[in-house]
Amino acid sequence: MTGEPQPLAPGSTIGILGGGQLGRMLALAAARLGFKCHIYAPAGDTPAFDVAHSHSCAGYDDERALAAFAAAVDVVTYEFENVPLETAARLARHAPLYPPAKALKVSQDRVAEKSFLGDIGLKTADWLHDDDIEAVVAQAAGEFDGKGRRGIVKTCRLGYDGKGQVRVTDVAGLREAWQALAGSALILEWEVPFRCEVSVIAARSRTGEVRCFDIAENRHENGILRSSTVPARIRPQTAAAAHGIAERLLANLDYCGVVGVELFVVDSDAGEQLVVNEFAPRVHNSGHWTEAACTVSQFEQHIRAIAGWPLGNPARHSDAVMENLLGSEIDAVPELAGQDRTMVHVYGKREARDGRKMGHFTRLTR
Amino acid sequence: MTGEPQPLAPGSTIGILGGGQLGRMLALAAARLGFKCHIYAPAGDTPAFDVAHSHSCAGYDDERALAAFAAAVDVVTYEFENVPLETAARLARHAPLYPPAKALKVSQDRVAEKSFLGDIGLKTADWLHDDDIEAVVAQAAGEFDGKGRRGIVKTCRLGYDGKGQVRVTDVAGLREAWQALAGSALILEWEVPFRCEVSVIAARSRTGEVRCFDIAENRHENGILRSSTVPARIRPQTAAAAHGIAERLLANLDYCGVVGVELFVVDSDAGEQLVVNEFAPRVHNSGHWTEAACTVSQFEQHIRAIAGWPLGNPARHSDAVMENLLGSEIDAVPELAGQDRTMVHVYGKREARDGRKMGHFTRLTR
Repeated sequence: MTGEPQPLAPGSTIGILGGGQLGRMLALAAARLGFKCHIYAPAGDTPAFDVAHSHSCAGYDDERALAAFAAAVDVVTYEFENVPLETAARLARHAPLYPPAKALKVSQDRVAEKSFLGDIGLKTADWLHDDDIEAVVAQAAGEFDGKGRRGIVKTCRLGYDGKGQVRVTDVAGLREAWQALAGSALILEWEVPFRCEVSVIAARSRTGEVRCFDIAENRHENGILRSSTVPARIRPQTAAAAHGIAERLLANLDYCGVVGVELFVVDSDAGEQLVVNEFAPRVHNSGHWTEAACTVSQFEQHIRAIAGWPLGNPARHSDAVMENLLGSEIDAVPELAGQDRTMVHVYGKREARDGRKMGHFTRLTR
Repeated sequence: MTGEPQPLAPGSTIGILGGGQLGRMLALAAARLGFKCHIYAPAGDTPAFDVAHSHSCAGYDDERALAAFAAAVDVVTYEFENVPLETAARLARHAPLYPPAKALKVSQDRVAEKSFLGDIGLKTADWLHDDDIEAVVAQAAGEFDGKGRRGIVKTCRLGYDGKGQVRVTDVAGLREAWQALAGSALILEWEVPFRCEVSVIAARSRTGEVRCFDIAENRHENGILRSSTVPARIRPQTAAAAHGIAERLLANLDYCGVVGVELFVVDSDAGEQLVVNEFAPRVHNSGHWTEAACTVSQFEQHIRAIAGWPLGNPARHSDAVMENLLGSEIDAVPELAGQDRTMVHVYGKREARDGRKMGHFTRLTR
């Protein structure tokens, strides 16, 4: 594409890669702005299809289907960070792709991500990476025994919701974990002694304007997000620092759209310090509360950004707690719907497997 | 149908008659609760199709298409009050129909509506109806000349947005209006000397629970709603009386779903008096502000009611002003979207004809 695309007119079509709940919520937000959505996803449980103007059910390597998709849409975005780079590159030749492919590339690989974050001056967990386990052991041994540090071995790619991760406390455990996860490139991350986990949901427009939602405090169980609470129990200057981190990240990626940045809050003698855990180049589970507590949700904010519309004011009108509904917890929805100041959201998935994100609810608390 | 239907499970399909913006907004609200929607509407500009799981494009007298529609859905509702009674009756034999056919029957005809409202003790404008113009003239003459009253001749059926209405101030004008609207059954309504117009959006569950949203103050131009403001500038006891009117109406219709009741506020020596203008057995333009200012919008409230789910708390978290965007006013949307605390909603209609409702925006004001 040459030149800056014009703002999208209502009636235009937004192409979304991925048919899950995030794509569905993006499509619902786009509809309110008068846009049509075309969802592209392989066969499976694809709740986004149910609310979109049109869809393509095909693999991410199906050149023919991708070409037809690109021809049918005015802009392309995605609901997950593991879109194959080749797919993204192919589409970007025919339609504007937001967020840019660089954001995919960096976020798909933990080593690339941590290297990038370090290069732009953002603090991450300390980490070790080497194809040779002996090289990792050599560097890690002193940290375990001498300093009592604990680590997490993670696959560099395709991990989510705590999958592909093993905690280790000594060299024996490290060797075991390396064995268990063999076949994938691996990284050893040193645990950060955090007091709490927070996240910032931020948006950057095509023209470089950045707006950040208020910081949410997140609680995970078994690697899966259980709840997000706003406001987070952090100091105002820490919240401002979190916004600054998001801004720096977005600017250095020449980003357009919404990003979710997960941060550890570490208490130190110098006050609260922030360490970047990871970022996702898309709307984020820890931003679902914005739908209930802000005039413009993270989903609408993303659509506005990629459509070249003005970003909305991210101020919240209420405090809020969002809780995920996993597996059969979704059965509580009609009862939850009866509770005061509670917004429920059901994703319309066919199968309520254990631990699967089936819906969420947000309670306005003040 | 025999017996009380069970609450609808997520994944069930809601059938909606009508493919306009109200059907579209109902479908978006239903999607958030995990329901699929099947829209039934004749060919035309049908923006609801774009956000629904499935649709039937057929006439309301197409028995075959109606049968297939009834077989595909778990409950039937509608976005407009002029659904042919025969269509409603046919569908009600196969699936629960909410609101009930009686609400359609009463609201489709101004004489039936005013008679019904009078019968249940609710005050309306004074009115005259007779097939014979001379009988109307005989009764009206003394009111014009002796008392200076002004009237509005309206078609009994199928009027909306000020269409099918002529103001009259004397017998000659009355005769002219009767001539101009000839071919339809007509009613003469005496103008109510109101200070302002308000409306109450109320919901009744299958089990008879009633919840009312806060009263909105409405401004019309040329018979078309321009804006709705909450709170309305009326006394608390007047607001309570408006809620009481809605409750009485809903109970007497054995209603299920959302209703919009338009009321005149008349200043009198005895304080503010309420006169019912008309009601619509559906979600209502003057309730669009609920989407921005309440946790549960009128659209979701309607879906909850007809699905047998608990009604939501209708309390508003903010004051608000909703303004309609007619015809080419829709072009202002990207700019409006940039204003603080402003939620825009674009209906996705293809053609922006003059005076046509193309979208709206709601500004939170406090």
